[in-house]
Amino acid sequence: MANFYVGVDVGGTTVKMGLFSEEGELLEKWEIPTRTEESGVNILPDIVKSIESKRQEKGGHISGIGMGVPGPVTDDGVVLKCANLGWGVVSAKNEVSSLTGVGNVAIANDANIAALGEMWKGGGRGFNSIVMVTLGTGVGGGIIIRGKILTGSMGAGGEIGHLKVNPQETESCNCGGKGCLEQYTSATGIVRIAKKHLHPGGAKLEDSCLAGVEITAKAIFDGAKSGDTYCEEVVEEFGRYLGYGLANVAQVVDPEAFVIGGGVSRAGEIILDVTKRYYNDHVMFALQNKEFRLAELGNDAGIYGAVKMVI
Amino acid sequence: MANFYVGVDVGGTTVKMGLFSEEGELLEKWEIPTRTEESGVNILPDIVKSIESKRQEKGGHISGIGMGVPGPVTDDGVVLKCANLGWGVVSAKNEVSSLTGVGNVAIANDANIAALGEMWKGGGRGFNSIVMVTLGTGVGGGIIIRGKILTGSMGAGGEIGHLKVNPQETESCNCGGKGCLEQYTSATGIVRIAKKHLHPGGAKLEDSCLAGVEITAKAIFDGAKSGDTYCEEVVEEFGRYLGYGLANVAQVVDPEAFVIGGGVSRAGEIILDVTKRYYNDHVMFALQNKEFRLAELGNDAGIYGAVKMVI
Repeated sequence: MANFYVGVDVGGTTVKMGLFSEEGELLEKWEIPTRTEESGVNILPDIVKSIESKRQEKGGHISGIGMGVPGPVTDDGVVLKCANLGWGVVSAKNEVSSLTGVGNVAIANDANIAALGEMWKGGGRGFNSIVMVTLGTGVGGGIIIRGKILTGSMGAGGEIGHLKVNPQETESCNCGGKGCLEQYTSATGIVRIAKKHLHPGGAKLEDSCLAGVEITAKAIFDGAKSGDTYCEEVVEEFGRYLGYGLANVAQVVDPEAFVIGGGVSRAGEIILDVTKRYYNDHVMFALQNKEFRLAELGNDAGIYGAVKMVI
Repeated sequence: MANFYVGVDVGGTTVKMGLFSEEGELLEKWEIPTRTEESGVNILPDIVKSIESKRQEKGGHISGIGMGVPGPVTDDGVVLKCANLGWGVVSAKNEVSSLTGVGNVAIANDANIAALGEMWKGGGRGFNSIVMVTLGTGVGGGIIIRGKILTGSMGAGGEIGHLKVNPQETESCNCGGKGCLEQYTSATGIVRIAKKHLHPGGAKLEDSCLAGVEITAKAIFDGAKSGDTYCEEVVEEFGRYLGYGLANVAQVVDPEAFVIGGGVSRAGEIILDVTKRYYNDHVMFALQNKEFRLAELGNDAGIYGAVKMVI
């Protein structure tokens, strides 16, 4: 009878699941809705039922279940809080184990498992210690040191979206702080830069390709690639903040490589080039010239990383 | 026959050594000069001879040797460079093992073992994950995650003295960078602040207790403790940079506690108070209210941490 492993990535709207072979091959993926009502009490039972029906369909044995959730998780698999799921403190690892009878269960933060997934099968392949930064609506981070997730004492390790990179900032971040990396390098952050960019003697918004159109991260990077000076200046500012922030991360953990993912990273190599340049400007000599890679797994990074914890 | 363990802390001028019991009790400590001539080829043989003569004097067996050196060291015990010792790449662990016949040998960076020592027997007792920052002539750092040193991929983990905390800085740090934590919080850094401190509408240097005397870190903290407004403002600026820098470290590794050591920390609780206040201002909510402690072992932190690696 075949041994299967399941990777689960729990989001606020849907739960992504993947069935993997013992060799770590993704055999099938599917989704179920996340039922966040009643403090999210149905979420884990729904997942367990879905896994069981997939197991019956395939006729095999479930040898391990790995799961990522959008909140801080201790190394013992206790979720401390997931506002998006309606959860307070939930002993998710124990609950999944007792509902399934599977002993080999691991739970971690979703940004952390995405980093683990990218290192295993994506942009971080071949490395053992990486920092992954996910540039989406917000900015998330995951740090892997010698193959293991840096969880932190209260599950908040790798929260690099809220690194402070600008002591002069006057506007507040969603977290309540000021000058967070997320305020400049998320999809909304770079649009914010574009709307208020003032570069003495530099290009003007009204003369750029962004004039009169809806400003999006994509429009900015596309403009920069086609030589629009204003967009180029905005991308420089984005890269300056990201390079500066990642230099500070390197001063703390000295990784082998950085992997950049999330929607914004679809702009491609232009992001690596500008970030690497400012990174090398700011980091101490011994930490210069680290590898910078684009993420490759997209939305599947989570199920890959989740299953990697148990396979 | 007694089993002994030896902790060694190799500095640019002297080598500090400690003989420990199996229970981790420091039985005796002594020093030998560091002979840095001829690319430091005599350093390890000198240490080994000194350990052997101590062993003969005590009549016992050496069961383990731990050593700290002032430079980056890989997890395999290979020193990548120690300018202060005249060393390039040195397989220190293998060399000590083969010179002594002791298999249980470990080598690490001196700032990292000081952190380990403080967690074991000093200000970090009772914690399992700490960040230690040493405020001396320079600023060093050591990070312990779940009892293990965060070495980094090239031995540069925990180099928090060169975190960038001020993008506006125009003067250069010793490392060549600008705006490093060390430029504001080392013994020389705080004196630098005091000499150039300009606070619109604030106190003036010429009206303070620092006027006409040699400005030292000690004089500044003593002045602040006795209510000198100018010194208080300088200490605020020091604390603002240190709190800001440590907030960024926490965003990356989420430790349980911070331990502050080095000569500057002799000023005492005043340092913890001001740093903690700015730390909580800058760090995200989930990371607020970490523990802040003063280091307790002084110059012995190194030999304690060194021996902890092998005991």
